[in-house]
Amino acid sequence: MSLDLNEYPHRRYNILTGEWVLVSPHRTKRPWQGKQEEVQNEKKPSYDPSCYLCPGNTRSNGQVNPNYTSTFTFINDFSALLADTPSDKFEDGLFRAKGESGICKVVCFSPDHSLTLPLMEVAAIEEVIQLWRNEYKSLGSIDGINYVQIFENKGELMGCSNPHPHGQIWSQSSIPEEVLKKSKKQEEYWQEYQRSILGDYLIQEVQKKERLLFEDSNFVALVPFWAVWPYEVMIAPKRHLQHIGQLNANEIKSFAKAIKKVTTKFDNLFETSFPYSMGIHQAPTDGREHEAWHFHMSFYPPLLRSATVKKFMVGYELFANPQRDITAEQAAKTLQELPDTHYLNSID
Amino acid sequence: MSLDLNEYPHRRYNILTGEWVLVSPHRTKRPWQGKQEEVQNEKKPSYDPSCYLCPGNTRSNGQVNPNYTSTFTFINDFSALLADTPSDKFEDGLFRAKGESGICKVVCFSPDHSLTLPLMEVAAIEEVIQLWRNEYKSLGSIDGINYVQIFENKGELMGCSNPHPHGQIWSQSSIPEEVLKKSKKQEEYWQEYQRSILGDYLIQEVQKKERLLFEDSNFVALVPFWAVWPYEVMIAPKRHLQHIGQLNANEIKSFAKAIKKVTTKFDNLFETSFPYSMGIHQAPTDGREHEAWHFHMSFYPPLLRSATVKKFMVGYELFANPQRDITAEQAAKTLQELPDTHYLNSID
Ligand SMILES: O=P(O)(O)O[C@H]1O[C@H](CO)[C@@H](O)[C@H](O)[C@H]1O
Ligand SMILES: O=P(O)(O)O[C@H]1O[C@H](CO)[C@@H](O)[C@H](O)[C@H]1O
Repeated sequence: MSLDLNEYPHRRYNILTGEWVLVSPHRTKRPWQGKQEEVQNEKKPSYDPSCYLCPGNTRSNGQVNPNYTSTFTFINDFSALLADTPSDKFEDGLFRAKGESGICKVVCFSPDHSLTLPLMEVAAIEEVIQLWRNEYKSLGSIDGINYVQIFENKGELMGCSNPHPHGQIWSQSSIPEEVLKKSKKQEEYWQEYQRSILGDYLIQEVQKKERLLFEDSNFVALVPFWAVWPYEVMIAPKRHLQHIGQLNANEIKSFAKAIKKVTTKFDNLFETSFPYSMGIHQAPTDGREHEAWHFHMSFYPPLLRSATVKKFMVGYELFANPQRDITAEQAAKTLQELPDTHYLNSID
Repeated sequence: MSLDLNEYPHRRYNILTGEWVLVSPHRTKRPWQGKQEEVQNEKKPSYDPSCYLCPGNTRSNGQVNPNYTSTFTFINDFSALLADTPSDKFEDGLFRAKGESGICKVVCFSPDHSLTLPLMEVAAIEEVIQLWRNEYKSLGSIDGINYVQIFENKGELMGCSNPHPHGQIWSQSSIPEEVLKKSKKQEEYWQEYQRSILGDYLIQEVQKKERLLFEDSNFVALVPFWAVWPYEVMIAPKRHLQHIGQLNANEIKSFAKAIKKVTTKFDNLFETSFPYSMGIHQAPTDGREHEAWHFHMSFYPPLLRSATVKKFMVGYELFANPQRDITAEQAAKTLQELPDTHYLNSID
């Protein structure tokens, strides 16, 4: 007998990290008397004179942004990582540390302060992808930059301190923990089958359709079977590409369409600008082969019940194991049924 | 030359999990324009007729709480884990899941609605420890309960939906991910040296004093060298105890004193009821030996700069690696210099 995943608490296995998530499908009925987040639905202007990311404005270090017309990138004025940091070790018994060098950049998606990815045209999202490609390649080719983490924190709830549409890139000498886990599991499968584990998974998901949100000849978007965050979504290419540097023009267009579709559904879910952290996991740039790597973009959005009630990853989740209340299938169904037109653009 | 940890960005190694944390000591000067949390400093009544944890009140399932006078525990009315869940597998190609059974309990620390651990007497905290001991032993002896996670989410910021002083215990059939990591690293060291890795680390910390917050003949409290959260603190016994069931009466008293001291300093830091998630990591209850395990309690508090500005564990932290801005030594120094008397009880 196979377990009924809609009925019983269970654990699901993440084939990419090798870790389990606890799923409690019966727990959605729990009343919520805890924290209510603020909703921020006021309309932003296209240009904000006090925004340090708008074209022509001066940043806190005195530098003036160019009058950029599509995307714009610069080195973070408050970088967590700095170039030319010595890689010396600190070792003293059980105390171990090591110097870490890197480069942190800010990536503006658009000159228009009022936009977000779902409100941008597909062609404009393509330009963002082009910029990510260029940055992945140029940062990755720097000696001592062995991994390039592209990400976006969207919304105050996700620690974003400026609503101008932007993301970040932190590149560094070490390969981060999350990436190491995924390297290991992908390589194990590659060794055994000479196939991409994520590629094989995508084939199964496309057949099942249950968790699918988008599909064309190049890209797939879905709620992964092992999703941790309530409405977690993954976007991945069908072709076995190690990194975004290998995307062709057609694939870039599909990727942009998938991003627009997913983020539009997100906004439509609670009719709010949906907060999330988004990140791209791809092959390290340490000069090794990494043929097992299959790049993918993931969205980790915290909202659970409404625009004001999020899922807290706290005590049990921090000390023991990630845990979720709605199943991946319930989340996918809800997202599937939402319109593809952004609620701010739909005319009735 | 050994790296200067106050000067350069670096990574530190967590000897218990085998993972690294990124430390950016130069980044404290970053201005903050992002989210400001609400402060909640209004005084609570000792009894709240609408609180479902206060003595004599009725819970949402109709059960009436006894008129308890010290601690009180019951099965969570909205448990994420349920007893008697079938442990059947679900296997379908790359899709893997498994039924998970468990018992979730709520633990009231005191009948007095207005208290928190730092505001309780040491003797009252000892009673909480006694209850944790009993629960660890009785839950752990149930067939199919192989791990007992004791934790507390304190404050709305940490997803706590009721201010009555309470914590939770989630016990289950599988051993959670975080615990597995710590089992592995402790066992490796035990195999090599027949000694406790945490015990050896505590000896070094007691000599150095730099990160020490509390020490008596039985217990130590400190900011671990590899701390992730801004003011993360660990409390651990000097004796190599696998679990809290092995504590003697003297040790229980020391443990209670350490908890009171640490949580009082927390409240004094920003003169607010300091939010955190706290958890106890200890030996699994799966019937195996676990002689390498050295139990410890950890506090993960999110506040960074003030009562209203927290550290966000978002894009980079979720996708790549935990990252912190102040060093463990800076955090320890700040906490060391704070008074041991709670700010609400100090008379001037
Ligand atoms: O059980 P509670 O207190 O309602 O819930 C809280 O703690 C749980 C365990 O860490 C989390 O899963 C919830 O997200 C959080 O809101
Ligand atoms: O660099 P920002 O946007 O100011 O900072 C934000 O993203 C960083 C990277 O995820 C986090 O370390 C910060 O806690 C968060 O506030």
